[in-house]
Amino acid sequence: MSDLETRLVAEILGIRAIDCHSHVPAESPHALSLLDLLGYHYYTELAHSAGMPAEAVDPAKGEAEQIGEMVTRIETLSNTVQYSWLMEAARELFAFRPERLGPKNWQQLAAVVAESGKQPNRYRVVLDKSNLEKVFLTNRFDEDLSGIDREVFVPCLRTDDLVFQLADPDVRHRLAVKTGVEIGSTDDLRDAVRWLMRYFVQHGAGSAAISLPPDFVPSAPDEAAAGKALARVLKGKELSADEATALAVFTFDVIAATCKQFRKPFQLMIGVLRNVYPAGVAGGRDLLSKQGSLMAYAGLFRRYPEVDFTVSVLSMAWEHELATFAWIFPNCKPSGHWWYANIPAHIEYALRARLEAVPKVKLIGYYSDMYKVEFGLPKFNMYRRLLGRVLAREFVETGRMTEAQAVDTARLLLRENPKRIFNV
Amino acid sequence: MSDLETRLVAEILGIRAIDCHSHVPAESPHALSLLDLLGYHYYTELAHSAGMPAEAVDPAKGEAEQIGEMVTRIETLSNTVQYSWLMEAARELFAFRPERLGPKNWQQLAAVVAESGKQPNRYRVVLDKSNLEKVFLTNRFDEDLSGIDREVFVPCLRTDDLVFQLADPDVRHRLAVKTGVEIGSTDDLRDAVRWLMRYFVQHGAGSAAISLPPDFVPSAPDEAAAGKALARVLKGKELSADEATALAVFTFDVIAATCKQFRKPFQLMIGVLRNVYPAGVAGGRDLLSKQGSLMAYAGLFRRYPEVDFTVSVLSMAWEHELATFAWIFPNCKPSGHWWYANIPAHIEYALRARLEAVPKVKLIGYYSDMYKVEFGLPKFNMYRRLLGRVLAREFVETGRMTEAQAVDTARLLLRENPKRIFNV
Amino acid sequence: MSDLETRLVAEILGIRAIDCHSHVPAESPHALSLLDLLGYHYYTELAHSAGMPAEAVDPAKGEAEQIGEMVTRIETLSNTVQYSWLMEAARELFAFRPERLGPKNWQQLAAVVAESGKQPNRYRVVLDKSNLEKVFLTNRFDEDLSGIDREVFVPCLRTDDLVFQLADPDVRHRLAVKTGVEIGSTDDLRDAVRWLMRYFVQHGAGSAAISLPPDFVPSAPDEAAAGKALARVLKGKELSADEATALAVFTFDVIAATCKQFRKPFQLMIGVLRNVYPAGVAGGRDLLSKQGSLMAYAGLFRRYPEVDFTVSVLSMAWEHELATFAWIFPNCKPSGHWWYANIPAHIEYALRARLEAVPKVKLIGYYSDMYKVEFGLPKFNMYRRLLGRVLAREFVETGRMTEAQAVDTARLLLRENPKRIFNV
Repeated sequence: MSDLETRLVAEILGIRAIDCHSHVPAESPHALSLLDLLGYHYYTELAHSAGMPAEAVDPAKGEAEQIGEMVTRIETLSNTVQYSWLMEAARELFAFRPERLGPKNWQQLAAVVAESGKQPNRYRVVLDKSNLEKVFLTNRFDEDLSGIDREVFVPCLRTDDLVFQLADPDVRHRLAVKTGVEIGSTDDLRDAVRWLMRYFVQHGAGSAAISLPPDFVPSAPDEAAAGKALARVLKGKELSADEATALAVFTFDVIAATCKQFRKPFQLMIGVLRNVYPAGVAGGRDLLSKQGSLMAYAGLFRRYPEVDFTVSVLSMAWEHELATFAWIFPNCKPSGHWWYANIPAHIEYALRARLEAVPKVKLIGYYSDMYKVEFGLPKFNMYRRLLGRVLAREFVETGRMTEAQAVDTARLLLRENPKRIFNV
Repeated sequence: MSDLETRLVAEILGIRAIDCHSHVPAESPHALSLLDLLGYHYYTELAHSAGMPAEAVDPAKGEAEQIGEMVTRIETLSNTVQYSWLMEAARELFAFRPERLGPKNWQQLAAVVAESGKQPNRYRVVLDKSNLEKVFLTNRFDEDLSGIDREVFVPCLRTDDLVFQLADPDVRHRLAVKTGVEIGSTDDLRDAVRWLMRYFVQHGAGSAAISLPPDFVPSAPDEAAAGKALARVLKGKELSADEATALAVFTFDVIAATCKQFRKPFQLMIGVLRNVYPAGVAGGRDLLSKQGSLMAYAGLFRRYPEVDFTVSVLSMAWEHELATFAWIFPNCKPSGHWWYANIPAHIEYALRARLEAVPKVKLIGYYSDMYKVEFGLPKFNMYRRLLGRVLAREFVETGRMTEAQAVDTARLLLRENPKRIFNV
Repeated sequence: MSDLETRLVAEILGIRAIDCHSHVPAESPHALSLLDLLGYHYYTELAHSAGMPAEAVDPAKGEAEQIGEMVTRIETLSNTVQYSWLMEAARELFAFRPERLGPKNWQQLAAVVAESGKQPNRYRVVLDKSNLEKVFLTNRFDEDLSGIDREVFVPCLRTDDLVFQLADPDVRHRLAVKTGVEIGSTDDLRDAVRWLMRYFVQHGAGSAAISLPPDFVPSAPDEAAAGKALARVLKGKELSADEATALAVFTFDVIAATCKQFRKPFQLMIGVLRNVYPAGVAGGRDLLSKQGSLMAYAGLFRRYPEVDFTVSVLSMAWEHELATFAWIFPNCKPSGHWWYANIPAHIEYALRARLEAVPKVKLIGYYSDMYKVEFGLPKFNMYRRLLGRVLAREFVETGRMTEAQAVDTARLLLRENPKRIFNV
């Protein structure tokens, strides 16, 4: 690593970042046991992929047994970047010194994790050490937001269920209980979504969010068709594929319109196919497809010029489109490196291309997507190092930026852009 | 940068290049004012993408006002490679020394640009300093080519209107005025295209050229269907999508056949979708889609083995196909790095892959695609540096080429291949 | 090259590798003449692509004449990595010292190749020098395996003809002659495939293998539909596209089921389109398409959890999907870098991404795909150097692996994984 890169990385590690997407549970944000770390789907799914039976981490089993299964096998995935997250978290947050985790030393780590987990507000210590100022949550639409520690957490309205599961009576029931609106018409749906967004905004929410399959097309909605589909749903009838699509497209549009009304960004996470591998471990059953095109979203970007769409794509085949759409559409803002694209090889390529062609004020550098706050540190550090590398090698060494400008650019990506775009 | 790379880049900067694709207007090739530089669509569209209203650069406004809007906002895109083109042009061609352009110093640059622009044949000085021997133009089919400075400019027959706008009476009228052929039949179309190509060749044209949407399929034409579509057009009737396609496919094939007859290459620029964002600034409304496949062109390459097709693709998702088609089809020649792919991250990857697997005599390294000659220097320099980097790191350092062979290879890409292929 | 990289490459060059896919003919594995090297389709197709008429290497011509055509033109492709394979083989295996091959020195090389080729078991010397312990063959289903030198070669049942050419009476005849089973029903097909697999396994086969077009979908078979299609075939009738698909999908599934029964992996090589350029040289007529998705294989991976599918994709557009499918599906194992993806630019990117996200025990690093054993050395050496580079730059220098762990990882990819997965 060049001296320049070393200096830049050090500066970037010092930037207090905003993490605009995570799955941290507000009621239990930090790890209470080693299984809270080893149970992260990356480790269980990779261990399963390398040969561990899915049953080995059946939640019905005891913690120690599950941990035992994992640590005897984790060497099979010690090459992965995910493993390096685990080891960096163990080292930096739990003072775990061994170079590898295994059957002979896991109890040492488990003891420290358990002990640390008992500290009140341990998560604040962790986030502080991780140099993360705020972490967005991803809340169920009917979640009670009143107890959230808003000093560090920012709620976010997850809308997947509304868009794709409205035919499920339980979803409608939860919606009615939360909002007081029994959905009988498309207007009711508008009212309910408005109610939710108001509630979320009142509790400090930064945005709505949704994950979408690669073949979803958010066209201009046909409200009459959506109304008919809704009427069939209310009669307990099955929807045809076309009817289900009409309803989903309408509901999606209602959410976008509500984002416009409340001046909140809409986080679009595009490209996931759910339950492709049902025999996998929990959290390790979804995959991506390279099919589809961001062109499907052009109409949405045109219809809602006032809404900031912060966009992540799951397939690297979509990455070039994302950067070009962000280059042209003012309201399309590339956001982080999601899940299967959250790998150094892909981040480095995508990050360089975005930095070379998208205005720097539009780029949301990174988010953790984590389930426990302990992973914020290693995931963000991975990104911070790659950002330092790209800025050093492609921008400062080529004379396109000074070192100070590179640091300023990093500050935009990690902190100032998410603060401004999400108004936190 | 290693000593080797420094030496190679210096050698490559010294190669007098051929620029086989630009939009330089023969009648006004160089900038007369700073707005001729800042008005380049890259800057207006990126500034708009970063938040500037499109109206800020409405041509109805005065020059100073438009420039003012741009320079107050241009810092938002100072990270982009396009910004670096602007600053390199300002520095190298107008002796502008500040590191950034802004509200406080733009008048200094504007004065020099305006002053320089008054020099007769300023464009020749610029091209000479840019180390560009010849620059191809992209001429409307009915353009008067007689006044072109053929010492430095090479005409090129742009055929987009013929293929995709023949149903427009104005296009047919312009065609009749230029060629004397009133299009009444498919044979007339052949005659008109032949007339045009002869005219262009007589005026030194290097090729025909066209930009194509990603879903265009240049199949073997159905002349009867095209004739019927043409007959409907002549009666003022709307064409169905199938009829429009039949006519476009036929006209495209006529142009390819005429290229064969006149032994001229056909520049195919594949992948653009027009007017995806109509609310954007002029020149900043088109985008790409990753959909489609170069396989659609296999039949064309088979039907016209005598025609050199110099091919650019707009989507990086097509880049691997392009290199493999060029590896197999003798008449498929990869050409430059077009528009949304003209970014260092993409050029470096694509260039390395082409150099590693396509015979060096087939590669057209780069073209500027510029609208004013001032951008030839920074765009080509960007490419020259990347070419030096790739040759140094992947070919000389790995022992696959000597330093002299690397320079010879660069000379093929920048100069000798376009000279030979376009016979200039 | 850093000292670290130099040391790593040296260690990796010392690993005795398994080559799990080649087209080496067991009866004539090493080159007997220079044309056996220059006639490799990479050289003839690239020379043709660069302008050599296909007739120049018509097998009807004499060897010297064909070689003459090649060597006068080979400079046109001296930039390619394929050329570097030729020169490294010439240097390392035939002590050929000139830096370039050409009309003035080819006879020197030709003499050494011819002389060396006369040595009995020359191929063993070549493989030993190449540090290859075993090389898989790709055998026709009716090949006589009895004479194969199983000390170094491993048979592999190529199933392309069975899946895609069963309507050809000659294929069915060959099948009947080999297995004694006249195909009259789908059950007969099962019997015949089982007979073949047993025969192959008895002769030490490591796997079945097939190459597939990008639009093939290995869905759950419809045996009734396949039976009807087979009945039509047996009556000498043409199959519709749907019928042909039903038969192919069924036969493919029978082979997968037979792999399960015999506990053998199934090598899937996905993405080739045959005879896209019929006017090309032999072996240089096939291409790829970026279209399609590995999602088409999800059902197969689910149906046969017991079968290891070692998967290669031809299009780089599929590479991200491959790594993610391997990350989730235990039985999907990425294998090597195939044909048009076997280029350093692509290998380096794909290899890094696989190593960063797929458990190391699942990765089959490389195979040669060669037709003569002489190409094993340069092809594997290209890979060994890239592996050293990626491990040095991305794993050891970033602190994610020690140097010893990097070498251990390389040993898995080159040797231990293929040994374990193919049980050789």
